[in-house]
Amino acid sequence: MNNGDITFHTRKWVRPEDLNANGTLFGGSLLRWIDEEAAIYAIVQLGNGMAVTKYMSEINFVSSAVKGDLIEMGLTATHFGRTSLTMRAEVRNMFTRKSILTIEKIVFVNLGSDGNPAAHGYDCITYDRDRLPMHLKEVDQ
Amino acid sequence: MNNGDITFHTRKWVRPEDLNANGTLFGGSLLRWIDEEAAIYAIVQLGNGMAVTKYMSEINFVSSAVKGDLIEMGLTATHFGRTSLTMRAEVRNMFTRKSILTIEKIVFVNLGSDGNPAAHGYDCITYDRDRLPMHLKEVDQ
Amino acid sequence: MNNGDITFHTRKWVRPEDLNANGTLFGGSLLRWIDEEAAIYAIVQLGNGMAVTKYMSEINFVSSAVKGDLIEMGLTATHFGRTSLTMRAEVRNMFTRKSILTIEKIVFVNLGSDGNPAAHGYDCITYDRDRLPMHLKEVDQ
Amino acid sequence: MNNGDITFHTRKWVRPEDLNANGTLFGGSLLRWIDEEAAIYAIVQLGNGMAVTKYMSEINFVSSAVKGDLIEMGLTATHFGRTSLTMRAEVRNMFTRKSILTIEKIVFVNLGSDGNPAAHGYDCITYDRDRLPMHLKEVDQ
Amino acid sequence: MNNGDITFHTRKWVRPEDLNANGTLFGGSLLRWIDEEAAIYAIVQLGNGMAVTKYMSEINFVSSAVKGDLIEMGLTATHFGRTSLTMRAEVRNMFTRKSILTIEKIVFVNLGSDGNPAAHGYDCITYDRDRLPMHLKEVDQ
Amino acid sequence: MNNGDITFHTRKWVRPEDLNANGTLFGGSLLRWIDEEAAIYAIVQLGNGMAVTKYMSEINFVSSAVKGDLIEMGLTATHFGRTSLTMRAEVRNMFTRKSILTIEKIVFVNLGSDGNPAAHGYDCITYDRDRLPMHLKEVDQ
Repeated sequence: MNNGDITFHTRKWVRPEDLNANGTLFGGSLLRWIDEEAAIYAIVQLGNGMAVTKYMSEINFVSSAVKGDLIEMGLTATHFGRTSLTMRAEVRNMFTRKSILTIEKIVFVNLGSDGNPAAHGYDCITYDRDRLPMHLKEVDQ
Repeated sequence: MNNGDITFHTRKWVRPEDLNANGTLFGGSLLRWIDEEAAIYAIVQLGNGMAVTKYMSEINFVSSAVKGDLIEMGLTATHFGRTSLTMRAEVRNMFTRKSILTIEKIVFVNLGSDGNPAAHGYDCITYDRDRLPMHLKEVDQ
Repeated sequence: MNNGDITFHTRKWVRPEDLNANGTLFGGSLLRWIDEEAAIYAIVQLGNGMAVTKYMSEINFVSSAVKGDLIEMGLTATHFGRTSLTMRAEVRNMFTRKSILTIEKIVFVNLGSDGNPAAHGYDCITYDRDRLPMHLKEVDQ
Repeated sequence: MNNGDITFHTRKWVRPEDLNANGTLFGGSLLRWIDEEAAIYAIVQLGNGMAVTKYMSEINFVSSAVKGDLIEMGLTATHFGRTSLTMRAEVRNMFTRKSILTIEKIVFVNLGSDGNPAAHGYDCITYDRDRLPMHLKEVDQ
Repeated sequence: MNNGDITFHTRKWVRPEDLNANGTLFGGSLLRWIDEEAAIYAIVQLGNGMAVTKYMSEINFVSSAVKGDLIEMGLTATHFGRTSLTMRAEVRNMFTRKSILTIEKIVFVNLGSDGNPAAHGYDCITYDRDRLPMHLKEVDQ
Repeated sequence: MNNGDITFHTRKWVRPEDLNANGTLFGGSLLRWIDEEAAIYAIVQLGNGMAVTKYMSEINFVSSAVKGDLIEMGLTATHFGRTSLTMRAEVRNMFTRKSILTIEKIVFVNLGSDGNPAAHGYDCITYDRDRLPMHLKEVDQ
């Protein structure tokens, strides 16, 4: 897989509340946004809302952003373990496509109803939303 | 144009802070999210960060969402006026694709540097990001 | 009924966290505020915390606000249906009384304990707080 | 003056984000709300957005609130000093009118454009909004 | 006891979202921060997460802070009642050590599982974390 | 240096707004907290508010936290480069001292007034606050 496989979905418009005291984008906001997006991506791949962040590989803050910039969050699944899912993530400026941060590996673990790691049964990426979380299965079937 | 033209980008994972006192998704959060997404969509179409919300047509809250649901925001441009842009918006559940709210018309107005409506010079939708906001033009060209 | 019937209650002091990237009041914050105020107004009229936003008629963003402005939210009941309540809403600048946005119809639906629409039993506006939500009735009587 | 002189304006619907870990209303949210309301009240009385909190007398947390409660913030001016304004504040449950907290004295100081205390020129309460902040005077006259 | 007994723990970096419309630190944010820190301090002293703010003595806002300032919150226990704990609090600038606000007495009340005041059984300050909240006792012993 | 060198300062009481949809501590909140604490620590060491996050080494989410837990953030400087500062970070449960996450290396870069990396002139850790940011020097000297 190469970087082109990343699909960008969620977007942010950098507003005053996202700035640090220097007037550039607060690193903590960036990390919060990418973690939420990774959780959403993992739920779609594993069909399980009970997946949690377990590990992130090194994070390079390549460039920053300022008030008024549009940025977007992108992810792609890179490995399916028995109970885990590994993703690659990138945040970039929507117009210049300049990278803001990259994370080579974000690992989520699939939890069973007892809160322990549980096999998820998938071994490949889905581009559909055919893996329904439990509470939706109960309603729809 | 039909509903299929809407492109969904930004996603949200409904967390406790997004709930009203009844435990369902707070309408005010929904409206905040779709307004931010509309602003981002308008900036991409008009290449101008100085575009502001001017009008929304009627809003139908078709269904709700609960904690743990994944939802996504979608928009499409439906009309380019001389100084305005009209969009159709929909928020829906990512898995069931059930509509949560729809807004037939959201109108943004393009502002000049004096804060008054200004011609934007576009008459069709772009699926690219080739219309650069001014502060990016200054940096990149 | 005319516009003079609107009673203004909740007030906001526009602070940096309420601004969009252009330095004017973020439309999404405005919508969030008026939806919360409408919920409160509906609970007072229906004596039921289980009332939810169902519909908003068109919204005109008449003027904006800047940092330091004081604004106020106003509502009045305009129609009592069997299970619904319709309100008219206005947000305005406290000093200049200049309108910021108006919404002719906001409809809330009264829900029963099963989450379905339920008759509320009222057909006129109250200027009192004599319609107690269930959890308060349990405590006080 | 007696307690009946207090005018209640701003209202809040207690939502999950306002709760502490015990499920009751977080004291810090309460204090934040009443301080913002006091600032708004002071700006109306002094016609100056540059007024700051200087002092609060003792605060009694008389009772609490839970998710779904409606509460309201009330204030009245009790003393006009040369550069200061003293107010009495109360937060209460909207339905039961049971007091949640009371503060006998909140003192704001009027600042000049140099950031130092400045005479405000008023010696009595206004029930109108006839004391315009500077930036509105510039626009409207 | 003198002021030197106060131990400062939690720190804040004043960012745009913490400012009022005048560009100085919003008093409501300050009060929110010190109330949370007092709750944490009380839980450590009483070993009970069910402790609530009951009273604050007068608050002097001695000086303010601006964007980019670092501030820190400090507390010390000054009296153990049968069901209550009294603390002294100070917020100050981290570099200049200039006081921002002081509160001579913040009183928390220890609650039993029925929500009523309950004896906590302590009569002196701990500098350790040897007083375990109930839910941790259940897990660890 | 070993782990015992880490000094823990800022504390958090896990409240409903910090939870993800599963009721455990939201990873994004954790990352936001530790990034703010790292910024504060770096400002103290470098005496410069213009320091920005440049790099984080891998992050292990060792355990989680639930509503009502008290957690604390700790850091220590591990290396002073010419324009950079490297820190080790840990977040842990205050009572059990169980680690929640660890980050071996967080690198901040010291920026000059032109926004480019600039030598900071320090080569060892300070346990004092003797390295004053520029805007405080201007005021106090």
